[in-house]
Amino acid sequence: MSIVVVGSVAFDGLKTPYGVREKVLGGAATYFSLSASYFTDVRVVGVVGDDFLPEHEAVMNQRGVDTRGIQRAEGKTFFWKGEYGDNVNEAKTLRTDLNVFATFQPQLPPEYLNSDYLFLANIDPVLQMKVCDSMPNAKLVGGDTMNYWIHDHRASLGEMLRRVDVLLINDGETKMLAGDNSLPRAARKVLELGPKALVVKHGEYGATIFFRDGEFAGGHHPFRAPALPLDEVRDPTGAGDSFAGGFMGHIASQDEVTREVLKHAMFYGSVMGSFAVERFGTERLQSLTREEIDERFNTFRELTHLS
Amino acid sequence: MSIVVVGSVAFDGLKTPYGVREKVLGGAATYFSLSASYFTDVRVVGVVGDDFLPEHEAVMNQRGVDTRGIQRAEGKTFFWKGEYGDNVNEAKTLRTDLNVFATFQPQLPPEYLNSDYLFLANIDPVLQMKVCDSMPNAKLVGGDTMNYWIHDHRASLGEMLRRVDVLLINDGETKMLAGDNSLPRAARKVLELGPKALVVKHGEYGATIFFRDGEFAGGHHPFRAPALPLDEVRDPTGAGDSFAGGFMGHIASQDEVTREVLKHAMFYGSVMGSFAVERFGTERLQSLTREEIDERFNTFRELTHLS
Repeated sequence: MSIVVVGSVAFDGLKTPYGVREKVLGGAATYFSLSASYFTDVRVVGVVGDDFLPEHEAVMNQRGVDTRGIQRAEGKTFFWKGEYGDNVNEAKTLRTDLNVFATFQPQLPPEYLNSDYLFLANIDPVLQMKVCDSMPNAKLVGGDTMNYWIHDHRASLGEMLRRVDVLLINDGETKMLAGDNSLPRAARKVLELGPKALVVKHGEYGATIFFRDGEFAGGHHPFRAPALPLDEVRDPTGAGDSFAGGFMGHIASQDEVTREVLKHAMFYGSVMGSFAVERFGTERLQSLTREEIDERFNTFRELTHLS
Repeated sequence: MSIVVVGSVAFDGLKTPYGVREKVLGGAATYFSLSASYFTDVRVVGVVGDDFLPEHEAVMNQRGVDTRGIQRAEGKTFFWKGEYGDNVNEAKTLRTDLNVFATFQPQLPPEYLNSDYLFLANIDPVLQMKVCDSMPNAKLVGGDTMNYWIHDHRASLGEMLRRVDVLLINDGETKMLAGDNSLPRAARKVLELGPKALVVKHGEYGATIFFRDGEFAGGHHPFRAPALPLDEVRDPTGAGDSFAGGFMGHIASQDEVTREVLKHAMFYGSVMGSFAVERFGTERLQSLTREEIDERFNTFRELTHLS
């Protein structure tokens, strides 16, 4: 089955303790697409400027990603520049040039509309809603957001949350959205806002999925996937979007969305996140094999499972 | 099999978002003893003052803990007063009165010396070493320490680390001890200092055990146990010592110390930590049943295991 992802396609300037990159391919939709491409057909919707060259698009096409939904606009592509210190969980934003992304109006090519799965990467919730409404028959909608929308665009975010089946955010965003400093309590409050499941990403400590009571045929117990204790996190950029790509990609590759499928998806999300951070930008996600993915999946199992 | 624990027996003054307690039974050895008592015979070594009454000792005796190693000294018992805000992982120390603990010289009753297991709670590494040397035939020695010893008593701590089989500390202590901000790298450096295994406690995110290559018959893969996402952490005091009690207690209850035993011990550690924080002080650890423990063990399994 295929999945549509809507979000940023961008260039990033990166500085980490392991080096500097002036301008590499980035953006949430890019990381998501590459990651999900190992599991299912991916169709991407975004906007780029004049500086986005065929070689950049080819990175996605080489992984089989359908890029017909990438619009061209006059001007430059979204550019983000960030720096990471010793704490790889915290990016310091040095520069954000929205460029053509500032007036992005997602438009789904008609060929995309029969997709069963949709992922709304972190963009204006008003746009997320519009996309959502254009795919009313989607079997499952995943979504992301961030502090800015939680803090300053609460009303439209609330509308968007009623349309999203699975929300993927981090600890801080969950607590902010719920106004509660206890994570499990905050998670329950977020689930009352709409989503049937909430994936809370804990950075180097993995991620937890919380289920709304009665959804996905099971009890109320949450499920936690670990992150790999990696010696060297070269570039944390895109870890969350790569997680989302593995998570949604696995779901889209299965016949049904059961609780067990969601649990496995949590592991695949962690697996893809762990690969993404091993090298700068999308480098590692371009050259994986399904074998490497399954091998790491088993490593994650060994990391947490008792015999 | 029996286990000897050496450490503080104390009174705590506690303030958390859930309430205030002026003076309740506390101390690392106390939490450890009560926790481990559900798994094996426990013998405690510590020092108390005149204000330590029979009713306090009875709390341990009721759980079958051998308290013949608790020395009496003139003066008051160690008193610690702390406060927790919204972040339950961070205690703010309001007062520390070492009292009789300041001149503590651990002395093991002769009846204790045949124990196979030893846990050195967080005290001066010079004292930890002395105790260790008095039990040269111990099958496994576990130990704890803290920032103060790492920072200001490095030489004696180094000596102590060469005698400890399993060290249990938290993320910050591991990074500080290794002088490295990458946790997996820091863990490897700590293992080079002596211990065969290192348990790094991540607070609400669980704990990871790292193994020295070739030890406990297995590869180099670490193992992670989750923490339970608890709605209400009423009082985080003693969570780490309760973890250590469950961890060491389970080990001491088994015939051999295999890697699989250590993995299960990680889960039992997390289980006991999760109980400890549900109520103030040692209250919850006094009234558990083995059935409740096994039930929660299964909940932890469900929280992390794929079928």
